[in-house]
Formats: sequence, structure tokens, C-alpha cells
Amino acid sequence: MLQSWSETAPLLVDVAMGRKPADLVIRNGRWVNVYSGEIVPNTDIAVAAGRFAYVGPDAGHTIGEGTKVVDAGGRYLVPGLCDAHMHVESGLVTVTEFARAVAPHGTTTMFIDPHEIANVLGMAGVKLMNDEAQSLPLNIFVQVPSCVPSAPGLENAGATLNAEDVREALAWPNIIGLGEMMNFPGVAANDPKMVAEIAATQNARLTVGGHYASPDLGRAFHAYAAGGPADDHEGTTVDDAIARVRQGMRAMLRLGSAWFDVAAQVKAITERGVDPRNFVLCTDDSHSGTLVNDGHMNRVVRHAIAQGLRPITAIQMATLNTAQHFGVERELGSIAPGRRADLIVTSDLAALPVEMVFARGRLLAEDGALVADIPAYDYPASAKNTVKLGKMLTAADFDIAAAGAAQVDVRVIGVVENQAPTKALQRSLPVRDGVVAMDRPGDVCQIALVERHRGTGGVVNAFVSGFGYDTDCAMASTVAHDSHHMIVVGTNKADMAQAANRLQEVGGGIVLIAGGKELALVELPVAGLMSDERAEVVAEKANRLVEGMRACGCTLNNAYMQHSLLALVVIPELRISDVGLIDVTRFEKTDVIIR
Amino acid sequence: MLQSWSETAPLLVDVAMGRKPADLVIRNGRWVNVYSGEIVPNTDIAVAAGRFAYVGPDAGHTIGEGTKVVDAGGRYLVPGLCDAHMHVESGLVTVTEFARAVAPHGTTTMFIDPHEIANVLGMAGVKLMNDEAQSLPLNIFVQVPSCVPSAPGLENAGATLNAEDVREALAWPNIIGLGEMMNFPGVAANDPKMVAEIAATQNARLTVGGHYASPDLGRAFHAYAAGGPADDHEGTTVDDAIARVRQGMRAMLRLGSAWFDVAAQVKAITERGVDPRNFVLCTDDSHSGTLVNDGHMNRVVRHAIAQGLRPITAIQMATLNTAQHFGVERELGSIAPGRRADLIVTSDLAALPVEMVFARGRLLAEDGALVADIPAYDYPASAKNTVKLGKMLTAADFDIAAAGAAQVDVRVIGVVENQAPTKALQRSLPVRDGVVAMDRPGDVCQIALVERHRGTGGVVNAFVSGFGYDTDCAMASTVAHDSHHMIVVGTNKADMAQAANRLQEVGGGIVLIAGGKELALVELPVAGLMSDERAEVVAEKANRLVEGMRACGCTLNNAYMQHSLLALVVIPELRISDVGLIDVTRFEKTDVIIR
Repeated sequence: MLQSWSETAPLLVDVAMGRKPADLVIRNGRWVNVYSGEIVPNTDIAVAAGRFAYVGPDAGHTIGEGTKVVDAGGRYLVPGLCDAHMHVESGLVTVTEFARAVAPHGTTTMFIDPHEIANVLGMAGVKLMNDEAQSLPLNIFVQVPSCVPSAPGLENAGATLNAEDVREALAWPNIIGLGEMMNFPGVAANDPKMVAEIAATQNARLTVGGHYASPDLGRAFHAYAAGGPADDHEGTTVDDAIARVRQGMRAMLRLGSAWFDVAAQVKAITERGVDPRNFVLCTDDSHSGTLVNDGHMNRVVRHAIAQGLRPITAIQMATLNTAQHFGVERELGSIAPGRRADLIVTSDLAALPVEMVFARGRLLAEDGALVADIPAYDYPASAKNTVKLGKMLTAADFDIAAAGAAQVDVRVIGVVENQAPTKALQRSLPVRDGVVAMDRPGDVCQIALVERHRGTGGVVNAFVSGFGYDTDCAMASTVAHDSHHMIVVGTNKADMAQAANRLQEVGGGIVLIAGGKELALVELPVAGLMSDERAEVVAEKANRLVEGMRACGCTLNNAYMQHSLLALVVIPELRISDVGLIDVTRFEKTDVIIR
Repeated sequence: MLQSWSETAPLLVDVAMGRKPADLVIRNGRWVNVYSGEIVPNTDIAVAAGRFAYVGPDAGHTIGEGTKVVDAGGRYLVPGLCDAHMHVESGLVTVTEFARAVAPHGTTTMFIDPHEIANVLGMAGVKLMNDEAQSLPLNIFVQVPSCVPSAPGLENAGATLNAEDVREALAWPNIIGLGEMMNFPGVAANDPKMVAEIAATQNARLTVGGHYASPDLGRAFHAYAAGGPADDHEGTTVDDAIARVRQGMRAMLRLGSAWFDVAAQVKAITERGVDPRNFVLCTDDSHSGTLVNDGHMNRVVRHAIAQGLRPITAIQMATLNTAQHFGVERELGSIAPGRRADLIVTSDLAALPVEMVFARGRLLAEDGALVADIPAYDYPASAKNTVKLGKMLTAADFDIAAAGAAQVDVRVIGVVENQAPTKALQRSLPVRDGVVAMDRPGDVCQIALVERHRGTGGVVNAFVSGFGYDTDCAMASTVAHDSHHMIVVGTNKADMAQAANRLQEVGGGIVLIAGGKELALVELPVAGLMSDERAEVVAEKANRLVEGMRACGCTLNNAYMQHSLLALVVIPELRISDVGLIDVTRFEKTDVIIR
């Protein structure tokens, strides 16, 4: 358990004065000083009780009998990297496994919004992840989800967080602020819940996370800024970034597995000369495959440098800038006395190979491999077996009735490759035996939203186009943003039923069935959202899933992600929820069959 | 009474959306954006309830019937200036009069350390100034003095603040942190009182002010940084500034009435390329004459620009950087939604003429003159009549006895022009009738420290050289850093007695008597430190004092300040206190007459 700076200060002073030995001394490094913006050669670092005690020339006076001494050999000493906004659940692994996966990439601090688990388990889920976060040897601060459910009235999530819940949670240890305020129309409209949540956060002197997912930089944007959100990661253009910074918000530039928002926005600095201090880097959502194969915040920093940023500037955007934003600058984000001894040793500031990673003075990883023992975290039974369908589903549960017609016009959710919004399509489909048929050659298959939180047995059926499935198959997932029921997409109703039942059996996850055969399964027993296996294992299973989807004719980029977003009833145009088919241009329920 | 952002947010949102009218709209300005580092032309600003509601193009939609509209005519809109560290008492006026004096110069925020009044009245004095600060229409945050008395054992101040006092005060409203931690050897030595005060401040998530008045950048400096102080204003060289920033401290560059530390240190930015974001400007001590004739933070910013800083950078150092340092960035220090509507209108960013000053949306000053009504603050009787000598003094109280010798060697405090340290001189003086005589041709006169807090009747006598008085005269002052007894310097003992008695009569101040005639008097009835008259009046009286001193032969630069610092028993080499003559190279009492 790390003690506070104030508890540790007398020891740190003793070490700096040479009166007591350091635990660890790293000699002969190039100090990447994010405060001064300099690279200071010939720097030694002394660490005691997990904090920096001395940073300067020749720390020989801090070395005693028990001191571990590491020679940096003239390499760079970089503060541990911070991810300013992210959802652990996107990696399909627990916080612990996420931490194990990213520590070798040099990430030592994450600001996480457990929005997904909150939609399944409510405050209990947030508390579980906050407890797990605090058990880890790196820094994982938790934001309280602000919008659960995301779209009240248009969906019923597994839980509802009200403003009083949020206010209470803001007082928990390790809570760093309010999670992304996605209800930006609500802020501009003074929705009482949003107003109360933001006020509670400001009154607790914590940070209000923003999420302004609109290209409108007019009144609604200004009103959003006046309402209190202190950052935003939804900008995509250079003007978005500049507008946010001008209004006193931090522009969070995002490079996730499927988000590529750094290159355009970083031009605010490289081309428009805007002061970089209020820019911050984040990932938002990283798949386990990205973590295993590509990296995490090192990937983002490297990418930012490749866009023309000075390395020290990009590093500030993933260290000091982030820490200042969340009010923890005196706790982390730099290599300076009193701060948590989180640092990376690297031989190249631009390519950023992460050769050693220390967190709180402990060597966590070396040459890309974890070397510290980080035990798995044991989730309680209450966080498992959350998939309650209320019954075994059969093919008939997916019938869409249309008595008395040979053909009907139906609304179809149109998936658009590489875009989050869907299209509201219309198709004419034949009716056989009073049931509307799918149109495989026309790429129209069925989608079902299966209620899974309360065992109501509810199944909402509709049509979807764009996956390109050309064989009998069905994919089901309990990762189904944001209320995380179960989304089943299939060309064959028996396969759809089998897929849904299979997920109930394993307690959640993602499964692909083709002609009665299970092609792939990613078990996600924690809340139906997260595996407790290693990220490598999950990535491998997810890879098999992608291969299976391809074998069934789906060549869509990020097809699994598209699948999981089809219940996201806050993004236009047409979505599905447990309430029904939702017209997200008018924010109301609509009918599958057009009368 | 200003409401918080969270209380005001719904109104600000309504104004930004055009649903409710603003109180004030300033049109057609050039927005000096300290977040982005840009100058944004054609900017309108809408203010409601004392806070910025909208900042952007065309605020026409926020203008209603009751909205006051000001045309900025293309001039610059600069955030109100912040003084990061200062002592109101140095102006010899109350907080209110100080505010009245500096508001026309564009200062709208001050971080004050009421160290002087604390030495006289203890926590009650701090509370009085904190109450007064909160009554004012601009922002005056108060630091809790950390070192009262400054030199325990070497002096007895009017009060003692212990760590528990400090901890309690940190919870008061408007308290922003711990005042300058002057006992830097105590920090490096883990003095329990200093450790406890710093810990209490860090635990309250407030800012620990630093004061590292030593050229030593070795272990003691590093230990000081590890101990917790978060800033320092005592650096004088470019290397001082860089060293502080590298260690994660804010370098506060000071331009006071008698401090000139900006020019040398700002080269860290202009010549060494250090990131300016962790540099902050302050005044520390400003005489009323400086406030009346030269300015305040506008003077500092202007000076910093004249040293080669970009105007926007210098302005950041007196606005956003300061606010971030004290954790009030979301409250002030920029022109951005939600923040207090403090701003300056100026037609020239480098010369910085302060043409209009708004604080909390209210016009305070125009073209250098206060236009708002800021009523005088009524100090209670308990803060007055603090000069208690216990008796009427006579010339004989100043006799220095030396029985049985015709001549003695004595220690003499040697004043050095333009320097705070004194020299420990030795002189040989004649003895007449058992009493050591002064040596007017040799510029050796007498100094007395008259106890004035408890009426003990104590008078400590010694010799001083350097003032150059060439006639019968005496000057007395109850401003006598840091314990603020009374310092009397004179060539004539009857004049010395008259001066001391006069100050007892008026409740404190500074007086100059020559041959029984009162040449000048600055009454300072509040704690013997501050006048409750206007700064102009005090400046005029202080000016008469300087003229009087010159008439008595004293041509020393800043002679009055030198006088008031002769009891500062923390700065070498030789000082006087109520305990006796103090050798500040060895931190112990010594004798006037050398045996």
C-alpha cells in the first residue's frame, strides 16, 4: 500500500540529504523533464517508499547497503504514461488483466470510466472495479459513470444511476471525477440530473469528464462548456480541438483501436501554433488485440510524434498535462521529488521502445514482458452469471409476424463500414406463413435484442443489412452498448437461438454459430463484459471470432464492434433496444413493418 | 456574494443558449486566450451572475433588455492579473485600501500571506485579514503563515502559531494554502512543526508556499523540494529558476518595490528555452508609493515583456499559470465560461495601459481610476492599540553601560545599501560617565529594540552604522520584521524616547523626530502595521518620512526598509531582537561590548 507524500516526506528528505538509504537508485539517465521541457543528461534518481526522493546529479549519497542500483546507461528516463480517458471493458478483460497487458507498454496511470459494468451491475459494478483498481501496483483512477442508462426511456439497462448515487460515489477513495457527460443535449437543456451530477463533481473539487459528440460549435457547444464539463475526447477536426481549448476545456486527442482522432487535431499545435499544454492523449477504447500486438499509450505517443510533435511535447500530453487536468500533478505525471516513482527507460524518444517500466519504484516490466507478479483478481459470484434470459430460446422467438400480406415494406438498420452512425434503410421482404422472411442475397438478415438483465424473456426483432453473411449463421454478444443486453444477428433462426442460449450457459460473451456448429466463443463471465483470462488469450479467441465471421461471408472492417454498437440508441439513425426499434433521429420507438 | 460555478451553471447555460439575458456583454474585443496562447479577434463576452457565460463570436443572442453592453472597439481583453505571492502589510495599508490601490492597475486576484499581522495578533489577525479579504469585490485568497515566530528562541513575537493552529486554519473558507515556508533548514532537518504544517496542507489538497532563500542548489535544496513546498520566490539567478522548475516547483519571479528578480530569471525562458508554463509572477512586497506611482502586477507583466517575453507568455504567468498552481484554474485566471468575470481592456498588449478593469463582471476601474464604491473596512478595537511599552520611555532607557573603562570595543550592526544582509562590524567607542557614547562623525549611532507586545518595558540597546544621520534625530517604527516590536534608531537619546512614546500614543507607525520636533509620522493603527487611510495618503506621508530622513543626513537607498529589517533575525550577520543582539551567523545571542 502506497503511503501519501505527506506521510513519506520525512523519509524522502532523509534520503535526499543522505541520512537514509534509497530503496532504488537509477544512475546515468537522461531526465525527460516534463516541467521544464528539457532533456537533462547525467541524471540520477533515488526512490524510497515508492516515491521519488531525489532527482539530480550524482545520487551516490543516497545509496546504502540495501539499495538496488540500476545503470540506465545514458538512456532516457520518461515519466510513466497516463491514459486520460478509457474504458477497461473495451479490452474484454478485467482491470487486472488490462493492467498486466499495458504495463509492458509503459502505461502506469489510467483514468477509467466503468460505464459498461455500471449498465449491468450499477453502483456495485463501479465499486467492484474501483476496488480492483486500488489493488493494483499501478495507478488506476475511476470516474463515476454519468449517464446510466444512456438513453432513459429508450432503453432499460441493468441498472440506473441517479444523481444521488453519483454524489455518494464521488466521496469514495480513488474516485477522480465524473465520467464522460454524454448527454450533451441534456447539459444544454439544463436536465436536472445532469446539472446535479456536474454540480456534485465540482463541489467535490473533482473533474467533470466531457463527451461532446457533435460537429456543432455554435450555441449548444458554448452552453456545454458553460455547463461544466472540463474536457472532451469526441473532437475529430483541428477546429474542434482549438474550440475546446479556447473554452478552457482540455482537448483529449484519442487513438483507440478504432478511433483515429490524433492526426487531424494535433495540427492545432503543429500548424496553428496553439499552446500544447491543454492537450491530452487518450485511447478511450482498446481491443485486447491492440494491447497485445500494437501497444497502448506508447502507441499513441509514438503516433503523435510521427505527426510532427516534438517528443517532449507528446510526452507532456501523456504525463504532466493529464495529471494537471485531474488535479494529481503533485502525485504523478513527472519525475520529480514526492511523486510516485513511475517511469520508463527507453533508448529512443521518438520510436519509444519501452525497455524498462517502474511503477511506484518497482520494476514491473522489462523489454516488453511483465516481470512483476500481479495476481489475478477474484470477482465475486454476484458479478457473474448475469445473463438471465428467463427461458431457453427457440427459433420461433425470432419470428417477425405479418399476417395477411405476401410482401411488406420494413425498416432495416443499415450498417456503414467504419462509421458509428447507421442508416435507416427500407426494404421490401416476402411474407411466408405469416412471417417476414430474410433476404440473404440482398444482405438483409435479422437482428434481435434479447433482454438479459431481468429474465423477462423479452426479444425484440428487426432487420439489419451490411454484414454480408452468406451462409446459415448467427452471432450473439452480451457486449451490447450501452445497456448491454444481448444482440443476436443471424441468417438462421435456429442458429440465433443456439447462440443466445449458449451465452446464457457460459454467463455471457460472444459466440458465433454456423449451421449448428460453434465456430468461436469468447467467454466474458464478468458481467457478460469481461474475461478474467489473459489479454493474449482473449485476443486469440477474438481473432478466431473474426476469422469465423469472415468464413460466414462478413468482410466488414471491425465487424464485431459494429455488431456490439447496434443497440447504442444515442447515435443516429436506426438502432434496436429492449424497448423496440428506435428511430434515433427523432428519439422515439418506431415499427419494423411500415404501415 | 459570488455564487459558485455549480450554483450558477444553469443560468450560464441559459445565457449561452440565448434563453436568458446576460448582465453584461462586451463586444468586439481581441480575446487574449491564455489556454490556447492565441489572440482571437472579433470576440464577444457575455457575463451573468459575475461569471463568464459565453465567449465567442457575436453574443447578440445573449443581449436582453437589462443587459449592459460595452463596445471594446477592437481592444484586447486580458484576464484579470493575479499576484501569486504578496504581503498586504508591506503597503502599510489594509487589505481594502490595498485592493482599492491595485484594482485600477488590473490586479483582480491576490494570494496573500498575512505573516506580519500574525506576528502581532496571531490567528486572530489572520482571521481578520481573511474576513476582510472575503468582503471585497475582487479575489484575495489567504495563506496561513507557516513560521510565526520566524526564529523561535531568538525572538518573542506577539503570538506563536503552532502546527495545530495552522491545521485548523487550513479549513477556513478562502484559505488557499500554507504561507511561505521560510524555515528551509527546518524542512531539510525534518523539524516536526514544519513537517506537520506541510502535511496538513497537502492533506487538505492545498498548496504549500515555499521560500528557499539560499544559493545552495545541492542536497539541502533537493531535500526542500522533497519536503513538499510547491513554489519558491526567492530565486535570483537563471539557474535558480531552472532548478526549481525541474524539481516540479513553480518558479515565482518577483518584482517588488525593492525586489528585482524577474530580469535574470526570465532568461530561463528567453535564452534557455525552458517551458514557461511553470513560471509565475509576483510582487511579494509593494510599498504604497509603488502602488500609487508605478503600478502593481501590470508593472510586473510589462517588465517581463520588456525582458523579451512574448506578451501572451507574460500574461499567462500572471493569470492561468498562477490559477493552475493554486488549484483555482476552473475558477479564475482566464476568460472562459464558468470562470469569474475578471478582465482588463487594454489597447496595447506590451505597454499594457489598463483602460478598464472588470471583476466578477463589475466595472471596478477605468483609465487608472477606481469607479466602484469599495467601502473602508472597519477593524475592531482588538486590532488597534497594540503598542504596549509598559511605561513612558526616557533617554536613560537607551544608556549602554560600561563601568570602569574609558573606551570599549563594541559590535555594530553594519547596514549595507541595497542588501538585506547586514555586516557584523566592530568599533571602538569612548565611555563617558560609565555610558558608551555614540560616534556621529564615524556614523555609529544607537539602535534599540523596544518590546511592544506585552508591555514588559524591555529595551535592548546596541549600535548601528550606515544610516549617515548627521544631526540630533531618531526614527522609530513598529514595522520591525518579523516579530514587529519597535525599532528605534537615533543619534540622540531624548529624541529616541520621544519617538517611541509617540508611537505608543498613536498606536503604532513610523515617526521621525529631530531635536524634539516631529518631522514625519505615518500612523499605522492596525496592529502597528497598517494604516486604514488611502494608499495615496500613506504614500504621501511615507514620502515626507523619506524627505525627513534625508534632511537628517540619511541618503541610503530604501532607508526606511533597511530600518524595518534590522530585527530580522533569520538573515545574517548581526541583528537585534527583544532577546538581545543576535549573531545570525551562529544563531545565538551575543554581547554589544566585546570583552
